[in-house]
Amino acid sequence: MNFSLPGYTPPDFSTPRLSTAPTATFTPVRRHGVAPEGYHATTVFPEYFQLSPGQWVLAARSRMDCVVVLAEKELLVKEFRNLRQGDLVAVGRSENGEQGIYVHTQGFAGPDQLDDKFAFRSNRTRETSFSIDYDQLYQLLDHERDQGFIVWVLGPAVTFDHDAREAFSRLIKLGYVHALLAGNALATHDLEGSLFETALGQELYHKRAVADGHYHHLDTLNTIRRAGSIQAAIDQELITEGIMHSLVCSGVPYVLAGSIRDDGPLPEIFGDVYQAQDAMRRYTSQATTVIALATQLHTIAAGNMTPSYTLTPQGQVRPVYFYSVDMSEFAVNKLSDRGSLTAKSILTNAQDFMVTLLRGLRERAS
Amino acid sequence: MNFSLPGYTPPDFSTPRLSTAPTATFTPVRRHGVAPEGYHATTVFPEYFQLSPGQWVLAARSRMDCVVVLAEKELLVKEFRNLRQGDLVAVGRSENGEQGIYVHTQGFAGPDQLDDKFAFRSNRTRETSFSIDYDQLYQLLDHERDQGFIVWVLGPAVTFDHDAREAFSRLIKLGYVHALLAGNALATHDLEGSLFETALGQELYHKRAVADGHYHHLDTLNTIRRAGSIQAAIDQELITEGIMHSLVCSGVPYVLAGSIRDDGPLPEIFGDVYQAQDAMRRYTSQATTVIALATQLHTIAAGNMTPSYTLTPQGQVRPVYFYSVDMSEFAVNKLSDRGSLTAKSILTNAQDFMVTLLRGLRERAS
Amino acid sequence: MNFSLPGYTPPDFSTPRLSTAPTATFTPVRRHGVAPEGYHATTVFPEYFQLSPGQWVLAARSRMDCVVVLAEKELLVKEFRNLRQGDLVAVGRSENGEQGIYVHTQGFAGPDQLDDKFAFRSNRTRETSFSIDYDQLYQLLDHERDQGFIVWVLGPAVTFDHDAREAFSRLIKLGYVHALLAGNALATHDLEGSLFETALGQELYHKRAVADGHYHHLDTLNTIRRAGSIQAAIDQELITEGIMHSLVCSGVPYVLAGSIRDDGPLPEIFGDVYQAQDAMRRYTSQATTVIALATQLHTIAAGNMTPSYTLTPQGQVRPVYFYSVDMSEFAVNKLSDRGSLTAKSILTNAQDFMVTLLRGLRERAS
Amino acid sequence: MNFSLPGYTPPDFSTPRLSTAPTATFTPVRRHGVAPEGYHATTVFPEYFQLSPGQWVLAARSRMDCVVVLAEKELLVKEFRNLRQGDLVAVGRSENGEQGIYVHTQGFAGPDQLDDKFAFRSNRTRETSFSIDYDQLYQLLDHERDQGFIVWVLGPAVTFDHDAREAFSRLIKLGYVHALLAGNALATHDLEGSLFETALGQELYHKRAVADGHYHHLDTLNTIRRAGSIQAAIDQELITEGIMHSLVCSGVPYVLAGSIRDDGPLPEIFGDVYQAQDAMRRYTSQATTVIALATQLHTIAAGNMTPSYTLTPQGQVRPVYFYSVDMSEFAVNKLSDRGSLTAKSILTNAQDFMVTLLRGLRERAS
Repeated sequence: MNFSLPGYTPPDFSTPRLSTAPTATFTPVRRHGVAPEGYHATTVFPEYFQLSPGQWVLAARSRMDCVVVLAEKELLVKEFRNLRQGDLVAVGRSENGEQGIYVHTQGFAGPDQLDDKFAFRSNRTRETSFSIDYDQLYQLLDHERDQGFIVWVLGPAVTFDHDAREAFSRLIKLGYVHALLAGNALATHDLEGSLFETALGQELYHKRAVADGHYHHLDTLNTIRRAGSIQAAIDQELITEGIMHSLVCSGVPYVLAGSIRDDGPLPEIFGDVYQAQDAMRRYTSQATTVIALATQLHTIAAGNMTPSYTLTPQGQVRPVYFYSVDMSEFAVNKLSDRGSLTAKSILTNAQDFMVTLLRGLRERAS
Repeated sequence: MNFSLPGYTPPDFSTPRLSTAPTATFTPVRRHGVAPEGYHATTVFPEYFQLSPGQWVLAARSRMDCVVVLAEKELLVKEFRNLRQGDLVAVGRSENGEQGIYVHTQGFAGPDQLDDKFAFRSNRTRETSFSIDYDQLYQLLDHERDQGFIVWVLGPAVTFDHDAREAFSRLIKLGYVHALLAGNALATHDLEGSLFETALGQELYHKRAVADGHYHHLDTLNTIRRAGSIQAAIDQELITEGIMHSLVCSGVPYVLAGSIRDDGPLPEIFGDVYQAQDAMRRYTSQATTVIALATQLHTIAAGNMTPSYTLTPQGQVRPVYFYSVDMSEFAVNKLSDRGSLTAKSILTNAQDFMVTLLRGLRERAS
Repeated sequence: MNFSLPGYTPPDFSTPRLSTAPTATFTPVRRHGVAPEGYHATTVFPEYFQLSPGQWVLAARSRMDCVVVLAEKELLVKEFRNLRQGDLVAVGRSENGEQGIYVHTQGFAGPDQLDDKFAFRSNRTRETSFSIDYDQLYQLLDHERDQGFIVWVLGPAVTFDHDAREAFSRLIKLGYVHALLAGNALATHDLEGSLFETALGQELYHKRAVADGHYHHLDTLNTIRRAGSIQAAIDQELITEGIMHSLVCSGVPYVLAGSIRDDGPLPEIFGDVYQAQDAMRRYTSQATTVIALATQLHTIAAGNMTPSYTLTPQGQVRPVYFYSVDMSEFAVNKLSDRGSLTAKSILTNAQDFMVTLLRGLRERAS
Repeated sequence: MNFSLPGYTPPDFSTPRLSTAPTATFTPVRRHGVAPEGYHATTVFPEYFQLSPGQWVLAARSRMDCVVVLAEKELLVKEFRNLRQGDLVAVGRSENGEQGIYVHTQGFAGPDQLDDKFAFRSNRTRETSFSIDYDQLYQLLDHERDQGFIVWVLGPAVTFDHDAREAFSRLIKLGYVHALLAGNALATHDLEGSLFETALGQELYHKRAVADGHYHHLDTLNTIRRAGSIQAAIDQELITEGIMHSLVCSGVPYVLAGSIRDDGPLPEIFGDVYQAQDAMRRYTSQATTVIALATQLHTIAAGNMTPSYTLTPQGQVRPVYFYSVDMSEFAVNKLSDRGSLTAKSILTNAQDFMVTLLRGLRERAS
């Protein structure tokens, strides 16, 4: 079975309510980073703004909890901190056209079976059945590898396990990874794996403690800092395999966001978290599927900036799938509780997930 | 790589301490179910009792928290509730021979690499690497299928998932299951799967809710109760596939222990939990490997009654491996906290574990 | 502020649908323990059966997942295993009167503010605010102490903590406990506390390990078994304080249900879990409030047998409140997932809950 | 009972091993941010460096995973990223004097009962007894209020709960809080509480959803950004109560570290996480007690930068106590797994902890 995109039904702007709606109001920013009174905040759904009578424009490259700025040729969805004096911000908190703003929550609903098939369910637990979710994910990823943009969000657990680390490196090489969002820990543990074949001083496969192994973590950071960058360390053949190596050699972009937990850090890290957000959003705004594993911090961050829809190269509206994989009901349910897009969750160990995913994709291919 | 049994080094009874130790004292039970003052309680380790000078006898078929009764030809390890008036119970709380009792905690330790290879580690978390554990488990199970006795302890989660249910049914047919310990829920959910292709009224694979599906659970119980037994329901071709079907058709014994959560119950259930314990221990006392998944109640119960060693048919002392698989650190660490035998834990979803295990065993076979 | 009972609005049987409904059908049981085809299964809600035209009778002392038996003067709600040949069982799976059966799900809803105030919410997490829940619970328990029946369902965690164990003993003496449902572990750990001032061999307050302390657990069981009963051990002044002591001295009934995890067991334990269920239901069917802490097994068991309503001595229908207190979202949400009555959950440590509860009740009293 | 500081036994430098040890070697940094080969990495323990024969100098204001730089009059403990060209870094990975470096792990051990009383225990679970821990904590905080420096590390859960938010505000006013380390979320939720009496749009106490309440979070951020700072918002009487208000009015410093999850952010946030680390360390290096609640990110960050000892104003070495309070065994045990200082953990809800703590401190005071 192959995946096919669910259809999208745009709003019917000919209904009395919408055809008689006023145009949207835009108010200028007076002070950098501060929105005008009554600003409209975005959701994860497609939102349309009536710019002139009958001209309803969709805000592309959206995300939730931002404001909409009228630029010359398009609507920009901006974080508050990125507002500049004079920016024209949409105001109005009604969502059904009353103020020229229409939030379209049901665009993917309808008789379309494929939509139903991939319908998001909430409140999953460790006892939920996940067989169909795996099968659908295989189909989806095969589709997205060629026709979409798959963003991975990874916590460090994957780098601690020999098989999971290999599986993800393999997924990169097979083309299933179009961007990686992670932190200093994932990259550092992975690079330690290549330099020392350990993770935090323990052999990756055999898990035996190694003499002076507790220095490996810091030595890895110091080595890469001396080399100047991960790229440089690869060029110098210090790093010869692993996740970061696979990314660089396959030309897959990554964003490593800093956090207050970091040692080192690695040279490529974004020390400023808001610059990191901007860099991450560059990828989530292209994403057609996001898979987030074993990290609450990065998963929620990515969830916050991922809309429920995006535009295909042909300009069609299509859904963005968001998978979150974690061991804890609390973690996976947090996304929906916080108003992030409804996420499809799988409750399991990130290591098993990765190994199972690679196998499933390979079985389909063979 | 193939598994080979770690060697066992018996105690050296020629040391001054042990060669001069007194014989063990046995005191009669005065009242059913009550041990005499100063009784000796068993551990999970091999324990030797000096019955006459120089004659140190190992208590076979042991388990922890029981007392040792001197029978005509052997030492019996009995639960307090199974003591009968006149039973001769070993007394003495010293464990190094001072009272003729020697608890041998280091029998499997030593230079033997295989012992080290399978050394138990404690305090595992979701971030522990498990690659080597899976590989060792494949080796172990291949060995135990032919030369051991593999007891499974299962919570109901496995029956909720299409692939995991199939995987375990397949493991039964492939000979990797020699006994199953479970509760009313596992069997009832599995039988519902065969009768209705649902679990608690939801389609097993597609997870769609079915009309009147909430009746399936009770209808299953009522149907089997009407048939008289699971065996009878299979004979009447009411049940045609699934875990219970595979067990019965493969002649694999099972114990279904009752609990206060039960509906129904199924006819085969042990309503009396102490009879259930006796029935369970019949299998754990033969076990060479126990694998417990996704149930705290049954896992701890089985852990309590599983010793760390057993005798091969040739009379050699060998270790008993105990794997516990669960989503929660609290659950898997509870066994060791409570003094059960040190367990090897894997933190993951029982469904993924089952599917991964079957695949790994098959890859070895091919 | 004081608690006052929310009103109950009975169904309006004069509506066309109900006034033209047929009478309910009752079919005899042919075989002990097996319900007739098409039996009606109960829910947690008030259910009415039209016995003769215009005579709609409420099933009192209900619980979910049972069948309704027509007795001489009343409707009995029976577990399948308790059905006897000839019992007349209500059949019909329509719930809106079509088959003379009406399930009344909205009896406590409506404009009543008190109902809203105590409205149940689902999907609570560790980050939910619980201040109001505590305050409402203080009010509720003060009301129920005198005018209700408060059933506690306790896991052993409470007995491990010095302050929590004292707090619950105090609640018993203050009249806030009308029945206790628990297992062998709770009672045994508590009795060990009185005999040895330890829990599993560790000092209750100072948590220091005590020499030979691991024997305390088994010695406690053996001591009580020798005495013959907890009552006897109290009479002999072996047990002088603690939870079990407070229960016995205050004349508060308790049910100790056996499980396959049990050592011993204590003499009062119900070894047969279905007899235990019957004994437990004797109290849950009287309950007006149930508080379940730190035990999945007993909480789900109690939840299964607790209806959402009961009758006051004056014959009024009133709600039954069910609180579940646990550390894990998975545990507290399991009740609702399984179709048990909607539970009000508090995510916290049972020890802190108990200590906080006692303080709150005392502050109200002073 | 009152707390008294455990004694500290310095190393005996007259032993043959230490009296014949070489002086420590210091090697210059060649490149900013890169340590020389063979650098020595710090632990959480007191570490002494022999600068000239017989002159062993303790590194003050230490933390783990840093390097030691020889400055004019003292030893500086620096993060790698803060190394400057020419800095003289201690090299040597032996810890028992062989290279002039001595790591003193047993300074607080010994016959001292108070040390034992406050001994750290590992592997705590939700079933651990915490009565004595609370009592010791009351004593400790009373001591530290006047003679120590208490640093709090808080996740946002405390601000969601009416009583917990009040309790912590009260603790600030009573002098038990000397610095607060937190993130954008804690401050924003707390300020929303003051502006709107809601948390994420839900009434703080009654938990009722409020119309347009989902705008409160963003409106709060926008309001404070417009005001320019939290201080300014207080001066303008926009913010009149709550945690941030209490901190500002009591002159208690705080560090709000940014993360990639942030909306807004608030003006005071450190967008650069390494500047945030520096700001945090300014307080953890003074800390005598750290209490971290309900945040993995900030708890681990603070744990990484908190040593196990500090110097009193009189120059005495004393322990630093580190409490971590969380709902999850995984979270609280992560600190020790990662090599942070041994933490004393309490498994409970942060809200109950806060309320219980305030009550306990007040009872001691009265």
